[in-house]
Amino acid sequence: MFPLEKTLLKALEEEIDALLPSPPLRRMLSYPLEGGKRLRPALCLLACCGVGGDPYQALPAAAGVELVHNFSLVHDDIQDASPLRRHRATVWKRWGVAQAITVGDALFSLSRLALLRLEGRGVPAKRVLPAARLLDEACLALCQGQYLDIALEKRPRVSRRPYFRMVRGKTSALLEASLALGAVVGGKEGDALEALQLFGRNLGLAYQLQDDALGLGGETAVVGKVSPDMRRKKKVFPVVYALEKAVGREGEELRQLYRKRALAPEDIGRVMALLNRMGALEYTMKLAQGYYDRALRELKKARLPQQQGLEEVVLYLRDRNF
Amino acid sequence: MFPLEKTLLKALEEEIDALLPSPPLRRMLSYPLEGGKRLRPALCLLACCGVGGDPYQALPAAAGVELVHNFSLVHDDIQDASPLRRHRATVWKRWGVAQAITVGDALFSLSRLALLRLEGRGVPAKRVLPAARLLDEACLALCQGQYLDIALEKRPRVSRRPYFRMVRGKTSALLEASLALGAVVGGKEGDALEALQLFGRNLGLAYQLQDDALGLGGETAVVGKVSPDMRRKKKVFPVVYALEKAVGREGEELRQLYRKRALAPEDIGRVMALLNRMGALEYTMKLAQGYYDRALRELKKARLPQQQGLEEVVLYLRDRNF
Repeated sequence: MFPLEKTLLKALEEEIDALLPSPPLRRMLSYPLEGGKRLRPALCLLACCGVGGDPYQALPAAAGVELVHNFSLVHDDIQDASPLRRHRATVWKRWGVAQAITVGDALFSLSRLALLRLEGRGVPAKRVLPAARLLDEACLALCQGQYLDIALEKRPRVSRRPYFRMVRGKTSALLEASLALGAVVGGKEGDALEALQLFGRNLGLAYQLQDDALGLGGETAVVGKVSPDMRRKKKVFPVVYALEKAVGREGEELRQLYRKRALAPEDIGRVMALLNRMGALEYTMKLAQGYYDRALRELKKARLPQQQGLEEVVLYLRDRNF
Repeated sequence: MFPLEKTLLKALEEEIDALLPSPPLRRMLSYPLEGGKRLRPALCLLACCGVGGDPYQALPAAAGVELVHNFSLVHDDIQDASPLRRHRATVWKRWGVAQAITVGDALFSLSRLALLRLEGRGVPAKRVLPAARLLDEACLALCQGQYLDIALEKRPRVSRRPYFRMVRGKTSALLEASLALGAVVGGKEGDALEALQLFGRNLGLAYQLQDDALGLGGETAVVGKVSPDMRRKKKVFPVVYALEKAVGREGEELRQLYRKRALAPEDIGRVMALLNRMGALEYTMKLAQGYYDRALRELKKARLPQQQGLEEVVLYLRDRNF
């Protein structure tokens, strides 16, 4: 699905597989890894190619970011009480909350062990350490985004600023790190690295806005994730927009609903009707398109020897409807 | 409480404090760190002194192991549904399960960022990388122990072997790593390092056995942790011992109880009566003493220039009644 050679993708799966511990924990760790899009490793490997590096050398970093992503999904599904992901039971639904916490923690541990394998691929220790720091800082930012995501649920009203701060942590940070890691392994520093990170930041914002809109657009069957987000008053962007823009009787009604502890099914019906009336989904999609465009402009500024692969990823994500 | 200079202990707290992110997440991260014994950083710093190194150089590693320990406690309290730790509400009890998962994940992220600060203290990159690997492998072992701990609850009967395997992961792995990190920062490798790790392994077994016995001995008020362990059929060592040794009518009754899904309060009363009749707590305490002795023997084998500090830690732990 992403513009990567089959042999490279196969090597990525082998890289991850080689890290998994012995059964029975092995089965519980490989389960959430199955069926993922491998977006973050693709960004890492393409960034490495893009700066003129050898993507095979970046495989440990690519495995690392995929493991971090999956650790965060496993914990996120517990936090959101989501029963389904990728059309299957989530880890906590299948093995219980206690073991799901451990599965996430183990994937988190493996992500570091993955990254440290860079040393065995001819990446000098002096370059492995900044790579490790990049990944660790992304993880901390991810936690800060996750903290904010949960905290904002409780607020009756959320403006754009905290929403965007949350997304920068929850979604952008790991995309930025994936790109930066690929570039660092490929030997790139300075301005190009910074441009790539700005590319990742805007790509993350675009991706999350689009995700928020698609998630509300009745597309849950396609994503394979039935989400109780609305009930818990999760501040997805169309809701942020509507709370900001609704005036008169409609505004009063909406704000009243978001002062409740949780939304009942009939409340959600009302909210959806208001969002539709205000064109909140269309507005969110348009905003997402704007961030995709900005991402492409930042990518150009990086002046990579090879940028076509990364461009194709952006277009693929932009044009998806799932 | 451990034989460390006050200025060094103060520097440790500052080392940890400097890593914490901005409010409001900061408060949630510092909360579980308050009131801990700092056993693992003490082992790290004393091991560094022991091999003739500068303990101030090892502070980033000491902070790292303490952060890992606290991440594991925060998640463990969710998994065990423990409402109290150190006489206070646990993180999940205070801020909810969702945020408590994030708090643990953030402490985990910080532990790596802590360790990477070794580079800024004159520890060469070539030595920081093996240190990072030591910590990551300990985290994976910790997860494997935690997995086993939860899995064993469900089994009607558990023999010593899986019990000891569980403790090696859950308790010993991080003690071993704490010692090894101190030694590595101090410039020690080879046989002495191995002896120190064996010291840590035996210390961990002794510590956990004693903890299991003290926990059942009605000492919960002292530890400040009221545990629903028995109800959930947690396989603490006195129970493992009793299930192994009980014969006749008593054995039948005990095994019958552990085939139930959960123990009712009156069941727990029966189990405690049987454990007392069989001297299971005394046996466990004796076994713990044996492992403390073995730990001291392994410590001697390390032939450190300075071993008194580590010895004092062992004696302090051995003679505790909380």
